[in-house]
Amino acid sequence: MAHHKHSNKIIHLKQLFIFIFGVALWFSPTPDGLTLQAWHLFSIFISIILAVILEAFPIFTASIIGLSFSVLTTTLTPKEAYSGFSQSFILLIIVAFLIARGVIKSGLGKRIAFLIIKKFGKSSLGLGYSMIAADMFIAPAFPSNTARSGVLFPIVNALAADSGSKVADGTRKKLGAYLMMTSMAGITISSAMWLTAMAANPAGVKMAQEFGVNISFGSWALAAFLPTLLAFIAIPWVLFKLFPPEIKHTPNAPEIAKQELEHMGNIHKNEYIMGFTFIAMVTLWVLSPVFGFDKTAVAFLGLAALMISNIFTMDDLAHEGRALGTLIWFAILYSMSSELNHLGFMSWLGDHISTFVIGYSWQMVYVLLVLAYVFIHYFFVSQTAQMLALFSVFLGVGVNTGVPAELLALMLLFATNFNAMITPQGSSANVIYLGSGYILSNEVYKYGGIITLLNSFIYLVFGSFWIIAVV
Amino acid sequence: MAHHKHSNKIIHLKQLFIFIFGVALWFSPTPDGLTLQAWHLFSIFISIILAVILEAFPIFTASIIGLSFSVLTTTLTPKEAYSGFSQSFILLIIVAFLIARGVIKSGLGKRIAFLIIKKFGKSSLGLGYSMIAADMFIAPAFPSNTARSGVLFPIVNALAADSGSKVADGTRKKLGAYLMMTSMAGITISSAMWLTAMAANPAGVKMAQEFGVNISFGSWALAAFLPTLLAFIAIPWVLFKLFPPEIKHTPNAPEIAKQELEHMGNIHKNEYIMGFTFIAMVTLWVLSPVFGFDKTAVAFLGLAALMISNIFTMDDLAHEGRALGTLIWFAILYSMSSELNHLGFMSWLGDHISTFVIGYSWQMVYVLLVLAYVFIHYFFVSQTAQMLALFSVFLGVGVNTGVPAELLALMLLFATNFNAMITPQGSSANVIYLGSGYILSNEVYKYGGIITLLNSFIYLVFGSFWIIAVV
Repeated sequence: MAHHKHSNKIIHLKQLFIFIFGVALWFSPTPDGLTLQAWHLFSIFISIILAVILEAFPIFTASIIGLSFSVLTTTLTPKEAYSGFSQSFILLIIVAFLIARGVIKSGLGKRIAFLIIKKFGKSSLGLGYSMIAADMFIAPAFPSNTARSGVLFPIVNALAADSGSKVADGTRKKLGAYLMMTSMAGITISSAMWLTAMAANPAGVKMAQEFGVNISFGSWALAAFLPTLLAFIAIPWVLFKLFPPEIKHTPNAPEIAKQELEHMGNIHKNEYIMGFTFIAMVTLWVLSPVFGFDKTAVAFLGLAALMISNIFTMDDLAHEGRALGTLIWFAILYSMSSELNHLGFMSWLGDHISTFVIGYSWQMVYVLLVLAYVFIHYFFVSQTAQMLALFSVFLGVGVNTGVPAELLALMLLFATNFNAMITPQGSSANVIYLGSGYILSNEVYKYGGIITLLNSFIYLVFGSFWIIAVV
Repeated sequence: MAHHKHSNKIIHLKQLFIFIFGVALWFSPTPDGLTLQAWHLFSIFISIILAVILEAFPIFTASIIGLSFSVLTTTLTPKEAYSGFSQSFILLIIVAFLIARGVIKSGLGKRIAFLIIKKFGKSSLGLGYSMIAADMFIAPAFPSNTARSGVLFPIVNALAADSGSKVADGTRKKLGAYLMMTSMAGITISSAMWLTAMAANPAGVKMAQEFGVNISFGSWALAAFLPTLLAFIAIPWVLFKLFPPEIKHTPNAPEIAKQELEHMGNIHKNEYIMGFTFIAMVTLWVLSPVFGFDKTAVAFLGLAALMISNIFTMDDLAHEGRALGTLIWFAILYSMSSELNHLGFMSWLGDHISTFVIGYSWQMVYVLLVLAYVFIHYFFVSQTAQMLALFSVFLGVGVNTGVPAELLALMLLFATNFNAMITPQGSSANVIYLGSGYILSNEVYKYGGIITLLNSFIYLVFGSFWIIAVV
């Protein structure tokens, strides 16, 4: 009780600090080249991020406070502030989340989880590697990392739950937290590995063409191969050391899984329906760029199929309040980040960084630009938005100061993906994993930050020499 | 089991019927004056409504099926289809819903409920009357019936729960369903009673000015007085007969409530915080037209206050999946209805009705126009949208055929409010009550339909003569 009161007091102090910080920033002089409105919005946005990092508020609470301040101070119009709620890709996250529940409820999740445990389940580390390997394998066919996380998340979720690691009973750290964090980290590099593994990649390739850089599916994969392989080897192990699961060795798990599978018997009707729905959805997702299907509508159709066959019911929906929370905070942060961009804050930041690097050697400029591009992702709630806002600016500055265009273009394209874990809102894939409750927002800031540093190191050091050698 | 299979079979037959109906309508010839797109969207929209009326699907499932069809057939663009999700008033419903949970959790809901039971609790009918009376009393200060239902709903909710009528344990019909339905019906007439009780009322008054009709706060209230009084007397009693609560007489309830209040003792800290937050929110809502506060941002701020003081926690949020369901189906139906309007379907319907009434006596035209205006609300998911789309059209047709402008204007203005219960989505106030789970969508179609008929009868018969006599 005394401890409880003590920690309550610390939280209140942190909240007070954030409040003073935000107000001080709000009233401090607006930097040259920024509008007052952009500065005010930045003050609110950075206060939200700081509040989450310092654990003063959960990300949901911080976001709704920020939202009400932005609207009531008329920094944002209601229309701007709520625009994120109708973004197709944000709704996709929510629907994917509900479908994941269907995968578990149907029993199919359990079966797949046991099959994976039977093969790789001798250690938690083995499971971590197998998750990223599966991701790498399916990634080239998934032009949306949101949709891909919608495929991987239910499996990781079932894997955790069926290994006795659950959020509800306080055992999230037994295995689930580690596996979720590892799979999330995996998506940062599986997206960097293939030109077709993330929606913004082809857009970046197109923008690079204006600088005379031609990147094909093959040349991208070749350039990404070595650093991605090294990151693939490093990530599960580093997280295993720094963010370890409580269960480490499970020598009997494959045998138990085998018995459980025998116990489960033949595939049931609901598993068939779930499996068929899932395969149909994935097929439509993969074909969506060709036929112009909206991915979210496909997901809604899949959810409808699960509801018609009673695999996901209205009662199940009533327990999915966490998905509502996710929708609210993510939509708010997305709206704010978009508006920061519209108000010119992002390009102002880009310009300042450009000015800063002039005069250094091209090698130094290269490293500084890439690192700046990586860390600026703190302010972005969409990888695509950052690419559209800053890729050309950064590439232009680099090329003008003598950095080889192809090297910088490829590295910025990779960075657009490998920096995705720097914040909970840094990628929609993160948001799906976070919504499970297995990982906390501040843990993403910490371990996602470490993974971002690790990725930056591997891609910048080994990747740069590799690109120069092979491309 | 046999029964279960039997009812399952009937549901599947209904689903098949809806599917055939929808497809047949889709492929049937487009009426003159409508685009193919409008006709297709209408086919989908009317199939959803029919599916809910026939209980083939819950409103959520029907809506997501309709959404995926509209988008995948490119009847709607994703942007159009998802636009409802970022509507400020729809988000207000969701936040009001979460705050209602805070009212219960803080204990304040219980206290207010017991105070009401102590005064009026001898019978369920007495509680029904007291709920509408309270609504009538606060309505002139609430220019948004959504916000007003956000005030009334938590009290009705607490009243039901503390009388031992809960959704979770299957006792919704003991008292809760009746009280919710009655309060919902009350809002249709409290909004009709005062010029300032609903957002669209002043807009309609302004539109009526173009026809030389000048309506003031006072003349509106005078004209509305008699029919509203009669409807006030009739509604709780009619629902008590047709949709009766299982608990009817509770002679001991006031005594029990008194004891419970003594047992509760002094007002606790959380109740003070909740009460203060609520009063602050209501004050800001009432002042919002003057200072231009966005009502939804105010609600978000109130929710934030409840979260900072731990009255509403992240754990509580995790159980509010029902609010997510509500957001999804209501946003979808709103988007579709808006697009039907944009595509000219609504004005096409209005034109056809106008053509139809030409040639009758003005009395007949008056009755037909008002009834058509009432029942056309089946297609609208916003009272304001219907007023903006059809009020001037209908008023113009009536005036041209000799209907007294003031009579018709007032009656159409009243009808905009008293027809609000004709569908679950007919008013955002309905949506908040429905989200509780105490009332089912098809019950709204049935009993809301009856109340709409009752209102139409009272306002048309008694109201018309009253208006002619006093105005």
